[in-house]
Amino acid sequence: MTIETVSLNRSHGGSQGVYKHMSRETGTDMTFSVFVPPHQGDTTLPVVWYLSGLTCTHANVTEKGEYRHACAELGLIFVAPDTSPRGDDVPGDPAGTYDFGLGAGFYVDATLEPFSRHYRMWSYVTEELPGLIAEHFPADPARQSVLGHSMGGHGALTMALRRPNHYRAASAFSPIVAPSQVPWGIKALGGYLGDYPEAWRKYDAVALIEDGARFSDFLVDYGDADQFLSEQLRPDLLERACLQARIPLTLHRQTGYDHSYYFVSTFMEDHMRWHAERLKA
Amino acid sequence: MTIETVSLNRSHGGSQGVYKHMSRETGTDMTFSVFVPPHQGDTTLPVVWYLSGLTCTHANVTEKGEYRHACAELGLIFVAPDTSPRGDDVPGDPAGTYDFGLGAGFYVDATLEPFSRHYRMWSYVTEELPGLIAEHFPADPARQSVLGHSMGGHGALTMALRRPNHYRAASAFSPIVAPSQVPWGIKALGGYLGDYPEAWRKYDAVALIEDGARFSDFLVDYGDADQFLSEQLRPDLLERACLQARIPLTLHRQTGYDHSYYFVSTFMEDHMRWHAERLKA
Repeated sequence: MTIETVSLNRSHGGSQGVYKHMSRETGTDMTFSVFVPPHQGDTTLPVVWYLSGLTCTHANVTEKGEYRHACAELGLIFVAPDTSPRGDDVPGDPAGTYDFGLGAGFYVDATLEPFSRHYRMWSYVTEELPGLIAEHFPADPARQSVLGHSMGGHGALTMALRRPNHYRAASAFSPIVAPSQVPWGIKALGGYLGDYPEAWRKYDAVALIEDGARFSDFLVDYGDADQFLSEQLRPDLLERACLQARIPLTLHRQTGYDHSYYFVSTFMEDHMRWHAERLKA
Repeated sequence: MTIETVSLNRSHGGSQGVYKHMSRETGTDMTFSVFVPPHQGDTTLPVVWYLSGLTCTHANVTEKGEYRHACAELGLIFVAPDTSPRGDDVPGDPAGTYDFGLGAGFYVDATLEPFSRHYRMWSYVTEELPGLIAEHFPADPARQSVLGHSMGGHGALTMALRRPNHYRAASAFSPIVAPSQVPWGIKALGGYLGDYPEAWRKYDAVALIEDGARFSDFLVDYGDADQFLSEQLRPDLLERACLQARIPLTLHRQTGYDHSYYFVSTFMEDHMRWHAERLKA
């Protein structure tokens, strides 16, 4: 499979690239970014996957995430995919809202027409793109981890719970933890999967834990000034589910922080250290 | 004087704000950003001024500069003004190019019609805005320093050379050092000041040094893959002028880096440490 280099900039001693490729899963061009830290010629390096939130592309975290300093120091490759397929052929939300369709793929494989053709973000981020990264970058497929923000935090938690042997660490900033129970998630899962709440459970971290899925441990940070906290994010539901399932959860409530990248960038280094410890263990 | 808060976000333990005010110098609304690090209630803190380059607003460095971590640690207020007046009344470049007019104020007080009414960026960044910062933020006016990128590096060097007792430190990323001798500068200084090269000299760091201006020392970083290096930036001219004038210049040629914020953010922490050492001496 071929990829096209959109841009490549030296940064923090490594290389920050943006790439484009034709995706077999989504049937569209997909753009993603990869930071490769400074490294010896033929080493392979652990890979941290970062999944972004509603309305974002790869660019938000690439420009505002402040991860390069830590990744350069810790020797981590950092990959940021887009949040949905895009293009003239791709149906969005007929109502044009921000929380469904373009920029809002929710990391699911849609089963409902007209979304099932292009909205295959689960397979894209768990299968297709990892293959591409392994082929084109000095990546060690045996050492991968995942984190994300908001909708991407939902993606990270569900990926870790469904593929616990595939990811050595998982963390999230302000994640949606129980999409089946909150407005954003009900709209998205209903729209992509139809009115079959049983089918939603494999895309819902809290439901997955209730159904027996397990992971070694999670790190979650959220801000207590986050405007989406009580209606959409509900960290309390994750806390309860982890407690009952005895999954160690390090949950930080950060005073005064909101939902923005000003928050994410503040704690990015902590998360990279969490990932590095587990990726290098 | 009143300011309006556009946004305020907690970040890296401090507060990142964006503000708007009616400027008496430019006769327009002006937007700027201020990061205030965590601090004790009634302390006053040193202020670092950051001047941005062509096409930028306050937002570029605020989002991509990666200065908050270091400023929080070192206790520095970081102020980022806009690069020109803006608004329906403000004349831009009739040809619509990026290197003159809107986003390209070059930190001069224009004397030529129709620019002289609004393009008063020198007085704005050296007089009006510092007064506003002193009034509204926990700033210590006796401890200020200045840095900038590209056109803003030009601004920082000229401000330091013309007001050496006002700034305790000065540094630059990829600065334009001799605008009178390079295409960007000839166009801008000619357009704002007219065809009077003698009048350009006070807005030209190399000419100022030749004319006797001095500063304690400078830190300058540039990338050897910067596409503007040999035509527009000419660090060699600054190096020669500083050598002849015996101004200590720490000049870093960074291998593989370009003109972008991927470069600036990489070395931002070094610059903040340089400023902090001198601001706290």
